[in-house]
Amino acid sequence: MIIVLKKGCKKRTVESIIKKVEELGFKAHAIFGVERTVIGAVGDDRDKHLLYALEAIPCVEKLVPILQPYKLASKEIRREPTIVKVDGASFGGGHFGVIAGPCSVETEKQIVETAIRVKKAGARMLRGGAFKPRTSPYAFQGLEEEGLKLLARAREESGLPFVTEVINPEDVELVGEYADVLQIGARNVQNFSLLRRVGKFGKPIVLKRGMSTTIQEFLMSAEYVLSEGCKDVILCERGIRTFENATRNTLDISAVPVIHERSHLPIIIDPSHATGARNYVPPLCFAAMACGADGIMVEVHPDPQKALCDGPQSLTIEDFAVLMTHLRKLSKFNGKKL
Amino acid sequence: MIIVLKKGCKKRTVESIIKKVEELGFKAHAIFGVERTVIGAVGDDRDKHLLYALEAIPCVEKLVPILQPYKLASKEIRREPTIVKVDGASFGGGHFGVIAGPCSVETEKQIVETAIRVKKAGARMLRGGAFKPRTSPYAFQGLEEEGLKLLARAREESGLPFVTEVINPEDVELVGEYADVLQIGARNVQNFSLLRRVGKFGKPIVLKRGMSTTIQEFLMSAEYVLSEGCKDVILCERGIRTFENATRNTLDISAVPVIHERSHLPIIIDPSHATGARNYVPPLCFAAMACGADGIMVEVHPDPQKALCDGPQSLTIEDFAVLMTHLRKLSKFNGKKL
Amino acid sequence: MIIVLKKGCKKRTVESIIKKVEELGFKAHAIFGVERTVIGAVGDDRDKHLLYALEAIPCVEKLVPILQPYKLASKEIRREPTIVKVDGASFGGGHFGVIAGPCSVETEKQIVETAIRVKKAGARMLRGGAFKPRTSPYAFQGLEEEGLKLLARAREESGLPFVTEVINPEDVELVGEYADVLQIGARNVQNFSLLRRVGKFGKPIVLKRGMSTTIQEFLMSAEYVLSEGCKDVILCERGIRTFENATRNTLDISAVPVIHERSHLPIIIDPSHATGARNYVPPLCFAAMACGADGIMVEVHPDPQKALCDGPQSLTIEDFAVLMTHLRKLSKFNGKKL
Amino acid sequence: MIIVLKKGCKKRTVESIIKKVEELGFKAHAIFGVERTVIGAVGDDRDKHLLYALEAIPCVEKLVPILQPYKLASKEIRREPTIVKVDGASFGGGHFGVIAGPCSVETEKQIVETAIRVKKAGARMLRGGAFKPRTSPYAFQGLEEEGLKLLARAREESGLPFVTEVINPEDVELVGEYADVLQIGARNVQNFSLLRRVGKFGKPIVLKRGMSTTIQEFLMSAEYVLSEGCKDVILCERGIRTFENATRNTLDISAVPVIHERSHLPIIIDPSHATGARNYVPPLCFAAMACGADGIMVEVHPDPQKALCDGPQSLTIEDFAVLMTHLRKLSKFNGKKL
Repeated sequence: MIIVLKKGCKKRTVESIIKKVEELGFKAHAIFGVERTVIGAVGDDRDKHLLYALEAIPCVEKLVPILQPYKLASKEIRREPTIVKVDGASFGGGHFGVIAGPCSVETEKQIVETAIRVKKAGARMLRGGAFKPRTSPYAFQGLEEEGLKLLARAREESGLPFVTEVINPEDVELVGEYADVLQIGARNVQNFSLLRRVGKFGKPIVLKRGMSTTIQEFLMSAEYVLSEGCKDVILCERGIRTFENATRNTLDISAVPVIHERSHLPIIIDPSHATGARNYVPPLCFAAMACGADGIMVEVHPDPQKALCDGPQSLTIEDFAVLMTHLRKLSKFNGKKL
Repeated sequence: MIIVLKKGCKKRTVESIIKKVEELGFKAHAIFGVERTVIGAVGDDRDKHLLYALEAIPCVEKLVPILQPYKLASKEIRREPTIVKVDGASFGGGHFGVIAGPCSVETEKQIVETAIRVKKAGARMLRGGAFKPRTSPYAFQGLEEEGLKLLARAREESGLPFVTEVINPEDVELVGEYADVLQIGARNVQNFSLLRRVGKFGKPIVLKRGMSTTIQEFLMSAEYVLSEGCKDVILCERGIRTFENATRNTLDISAVPVIHERSHLPIIIDPSHATGARNYVPPLCFAAMACGADGIMVEVHPDPQKALCDGPQSLTIEDFAVLMTHLRKLSKFNGKKL
Repeated sequence: MIIVLKKGCKKRTVESIIKKVEELGFKAHAIFGVERTVIGAVGDDRDKHLLYALEAIPCVEKLVPILQPYKLASKEIRREPTIVKVDGASFGGGHFGVIAGPCSVETEKQIVETAIRVKKAGARMLRGGAFKPRTSPYAFQGLEEEGLKLLARAREESGLPFVTEVINPEDVELVGEYADVLQIGARNVQNFSLLRRVGKFGKPIVLKRGMSTTIQEFLMSAEYVLSEGCKDVILCERGIRTFENATRNTLDISAVPVIHERSHLPIIIDPSHATGARNYVPPLCFAAMACGADGIMVEVHPDPQKALCDGPQSLTIEDFAVLMTHLRKLSKFNGKKL
Repeated sequence: MIIVLKKGCKKRTVESIIKKVEELGFKAHAIFGVERTVIGAVGDDRDKHLLYALEAIPCVEKLVPILQPYKLASKEIRREPTIVKVDGASFGGGHFGVIAGPCSVETEKQIVETAIRVKKAGARMLRGGAFKPRTSPYAFQGLEEEGLKLLARAREESGLPFVTEVINPEDVELVGEYADVLQIGARNVQNFSLLRRVGKFGKPIVLKRGMSTTIQEFLMSAEYVLSEGCKDVILCERGIRTFENATRNTLDISAVPVIHERSHLPIIIDPSHATGARNYVPPLCFAAMACGADGIMVEVHPDPQKALCDGPQSLTIEDFAVLMTHLRKLSKFNGKKL
């Protein structure tokens, strides 16, 4: 239920309404928009009639039920786009955030060099895997905490904030101690314990769509994070599984306008995992920006042939610099701020 | 097999080599490129050793086997992009062709008005269905020949050439008598009799990808048309069938760079059938142009609410004019000629 | 619309009602069931109110609208299962028809030997391709009319009726002159011209489901055939296209109970094309019979290693004989008549 | 690597070889077959040359590399089928285990009554959800520990062991304290932390295939469990996600023969989640048994209309009893022990 407040409603009143909502057994989420303040009250649908008592409060203008199954993620509760800002990188509301870096953190030299050079080319955030979800238990599983330390070192040297994946609910504190943004991978998009845990932790999240997750389910997974209090969720489309095998997955570019119609959350594109082939990465980055996406996440490696994982889909740093030049030119089309 | 000729080889010699190729039981397709002339010899792979006798001809530089299963459609035989030109509309090689019009031809007023107004807004070709493939035998099947006459009337009034679908091999002559370009619909992408027949007829073809056709199969279907002598095939990606249901189909935007890597044929995008929803059409047209597609085919109707079919995915003529303005602005990015 | 007649209604009266239905612009299909006779009136839905005038005829019990988009294929119009009988082979209503034979007709020896031996093992119908739909225009396209003649020869020698595919609407008469049953292949499931043509021709049809045809669309395609007057349509599930690549396609075994719930038509299984691997054929034949399918179509070749197409999925004749022994044993479970 | 031991090799020798394998940095898994004992040595592929030193040990017959990416799950390491036995219920090697029960545990009466009655009808294991993975954070999430207690109560009253899902790695001990078998749900099939944790815990596992997991990935997930020491993994096919919407998912029945060809692990079928409709459950159970599956897991509820979740796919207890009668009859076909 959306509780729309009258203009000029004081902060103290807002707090008292939140308290009442919580007394009725719901979670309250205040959303301070430019034009109006609303309180989202979410919880068990069967009890929502209780909330109508709040209509009697003078400062409450009206109550509006939320029709979508996702509540806090929906545009019904917040019409203005959410802008996720992390230390110089912004996503949403006209900001086009660029995240770049290798699939895995391998060595200090590799990650520090990549960070410094992608920053120079225009990236605003570094990516790199320390805990890697691998289909085989015998494959390289990442450098784990050592990888986190190297990422922190790269941040120090380059000034770029970094995002890295967390796999295990028990590791959220550890990863969160180092990382600026936590990534939930495609395989964990419906790992609800993990979603709740990162939602509680509070740092911004990059949430990757699963290989066979519908857009509605994807927004429901974002809802798990938002319902725990985290407000900064960046959605990431990274290809879905189809019969086509010319690309590793099929990039669902339509997810960009569909999500913009339904949600206030930013949506970025990962063309590296979507295609599995570096040649296709630049054209898909252009497609992403042109159709209104709020950013990209691309794999860049100083020496893709020697990468421990996903070499064939990684751009070289030189490729990445050329890509950024083109994106800056393209940004004149729709005024995206890079 | 590709028979590469030496520079400066005379036309008469080319003809004599073609004759020899045919005597050996192959079809010969001469391709006159800017830099070199080659002859593609296609036929039963088991007999290809016979062709090596041609290496003795002085004008023949070398023989190169074609590795892909599609031969004439492949970039191996022709490195320069094919530009399909139809009366003011061009597709490929830097030309971005815009095809617009209603799903079905309904009345003279509807189609003539649409033609005149989309031309004014910048379209270069009219589309409109006269023979409609419908899942139900009891649904409106199109105006048939009467529809072709109305399309011809719209061409006369607007100056726009038109493309329309042909469904039945026996109707190729009839449809081809009126239409400038013949369309093969998604359901007929592997209707090999129809492909052969339109290939023999010789007019340019728009070949739509099937709902579950891989890119390789799609190029093999183009090969059927090319192998009969037609050189002007425009490929059209119109969405593939996946589990996602937020859109009617899933636009496989990656097909654009994949096809450009493998084939010299132009590839255009149909965002109307891909999504089934007009709101998503403009962003996907921008994505198409930005990632290098050679054109778009969009549904436009003067009054979508009254359309006999596919109203929800049709743009109004006003929407279309706005779209064209944006596309002209975007074309500065990669120099596409609209 | 279903026009339910009273019990004991005379044939002359039925004919006069049919005439009236046709005068109102509908096609009339009389269905003589064990308990009641009904007339299906199908045509443009917008005119169906006209039919209510028929309620005044004394012999008419009531009019019942058909809710499904497929009318003649639906169980609403005919509750009893349709049994398609072809010269000793029966499909539906407790009959489990077994069709066996090679992918392609190759030589007289091959097809005659196969026919005689599969008959001995228990097959009731021979299959074999004379016109082959191939993704490549340069691949073996079948022996065409010569293949039909060899199939006729095999029928003569073995006593088995045969089914073979027709691809081109113009070939329906030619193929139909030789074949007992016409097959519409997966790629032509929505080739509506071909469906209408075979529907008019009148011989029984095996209609294969397309790689990405939904069950509803599949029944709509059957409706095209039925609406032209043909009553004997055998549906054939042969695998759909999914992401899984351990098998060539994914056999949708659930299609059997789903179709039995919605339609009176028989549904058979083709495990050879569904899996592309002979080892998986027998277990899937058992699954088909156990879940109530009305038959199977399996590829059998006297020497699979030398088969011109689809060798890896063909059973040897010895394998087939063992399979039949098991199926006879299994048939005791649900009383299927082999 | 498989280390094949000579016949008659003593236990003490086996232990000493295991110790040496572990000293070389590999995990050792002894497999005592009827005919031979082998030791699987699994670990980082790049070090496997080290193992060849073991060939010098007199009791070692030979070393055989494992070609499949899944090692312990593969048939290469163990040709005889694994039989998972849990207190009267057996799966694999000719045993057909039947698991029945409600989607969620709701009340003591519901679960105890169901347990007693499904046991009487022939079930060998009870299922019931205490921790429920739900797409919405606001939906009923299960009774949690209270649900486990009720399941334990039902076991006490009925004598049936039970399986229930665990979602969070931190809950493995809690759930494992009560449950006889732990279930990993479809959404967690690649939740590698959870897989490792249940593998270490050691109780038998039902591992459900994900909605878009290939069979190879599915076996790799089983490998995660096996590599931690657990030997008792029951694979469960529960439908994959495709374009077809007549059923909730598409049951991939071919997974049964494919997995039997590649792995020694038992594979069971869950037709309730595969179809989402109770009418289709019995025919698919018959298909499962006929094609060689090692069991079924079906949803049964004493009053499906009042079920808190998945009512439409639940059988009544009466339906279940009829199903069991048919399965006993069908078991004569291939000698499956129910």
